[in-house]
Amino acid sequence: MPNVATLATLRTFVDERDWDQFHSPENLAKSISIEAAELLELYQWNQEPDQERVEEELADVLTYCVHLASKLGVDIDEIILSKLEKTRMKYPAELARGRMTKYTDLQP
Amino acid sequence: MPNVATLATLRTFVDERDWDQFHSPENLAKSISIEAAELLELYQWNQEPDQERVEEELADVLTYCVHLASKLGVDIDEIILSKLEKTRMKYPAELARGRMTKYTDLQP
Amino acid sequence: MPNVATLATLRTFVDERDWDQFHSPENLAKSISIEAAELLELYQWNQEPDQERVEEELADVLTYCVHLASKLGVDIDEIILSKLEKTRMKYPAELARGRMTKYTDLQP
Amino acid sequence: MPNVATLATLRTFVDERDWDQFHSPENLAKSISIEAAELLELYQWNQEPDQERVEEELADVLTYCVHLASKLGVDIDEIILSKLEKTRMKYPAELARGRMTKYTDLQP
Repeated sequence: MPNVATLATLRTFVDERDWDQFHSPENLAKSISIEAAELLELYQWNQEPDQERVEEELADVLTYCVHLASKLGVDIDEIILSKLEKTRMKYPAELARGRMTKYTDLQP
Repeated sequence: MPNVATLATLRTFVDERDWDQFHSPENLAKSISIEAAELLELYQWNQEPDQERVEEELADVLTYCVHLASKLGVDIDEIILSKLEKTRMKYPAELARGRMTKYTDLQP
Repeated sequence: MPNVATLATLRTFVDERDWDQFHSPENLAKSISIEAAELLELYQWNQEPDQERVEEELADVLTYCVHLASKLGVDIDEIILSKLEKTRMKYPAELARGRMTKYTDLQP
Repeated sequence: MPNVATLATLRTFVDERDWDQFHSPENLAKSISIEAAELLELYQWNQEPDQERVEEELADVLTYCVHLASKLGVDIDEIILSKLEKTRMKYPAELARGRMTKYTDLQP
């Protein structure tokens, strides 16, 4: 994730512009936050923003996430699934069902 | 992106907890921003944070992005590539090479 | 803003810990975003979070804002009022009344 | 903080536009995050952005903080100082001097 062709296309785009020099992990982390806020801005006063704009801002977040994963040398599916196992332990289905209580407050 | 098995695993996880009711697009957009800031926090005073924690926070951002894409009914590869075409028009390689000048300030 | 005694107390706190060296404008800007997301997190799944926690997170955002204003050598009241004059021009009361339309879409 | 005149000016501005209806605490928390990211964006690729733009974005963050404090009925100086006392306990000067180690990792 994304598929190999998408990754290659993003990589070529960056290389053609010689932008890799700006893509330190810290800069990418900042960029993810900045783009996430642009996505959030669509929902600032409005719960049903224009779908195309949402897609574009979500794409921006994802693009920087892909760059950061690539910089870290990690596979996106692997880190998602690995983190999911930890979340699964914190939020057993029978305790967490139907509520968003923080795991530290979930009572067995 | 992610692959079909990852998507199915995430979907099952949410369904087992009956959490879909909390996953309005607005709540997912908030969650992406919140997780993005937790990723950024690792770089708050430090440019080389622990890799495992970075992977986990990046995974959290991606997980909520996947949920939002799913809610919107869009394919992640498609929106990334579609947005990339727009960025390509704003940042022609010959003008943008080696600099992060905003496209509105790029001179031909 | 805040009053002179508050500013002096914050300044002494930082000096006693020799933390000014970490307070580059960029680090303070990151910190403001990180704390803002911690505030937002209280509203992630919940529209009526605990008041004391909201006050604490809001205080964190404000504290870093005060540090940044101090680093920039600006007075907080002045920059708020100066920015308000620009916003006033973009959002004339008669056009903007009762709606959150972006100024670029406000029709006279 | 800000001074009484600034608070009154901000209040009048909102009232003239009948915008208070949009200023739920949750919307204000979202707005603070969004504006914080606009401030951060100035430092995205650049450690010395234009001072006037920094002042404007910082003013936007502060303005929404003032609105939230007002909505919560709290005094900004009081919450800053109250939070500072908690931070002071977590970060004793002698342990925290010259380093940004998280308090949970500070060794006596």
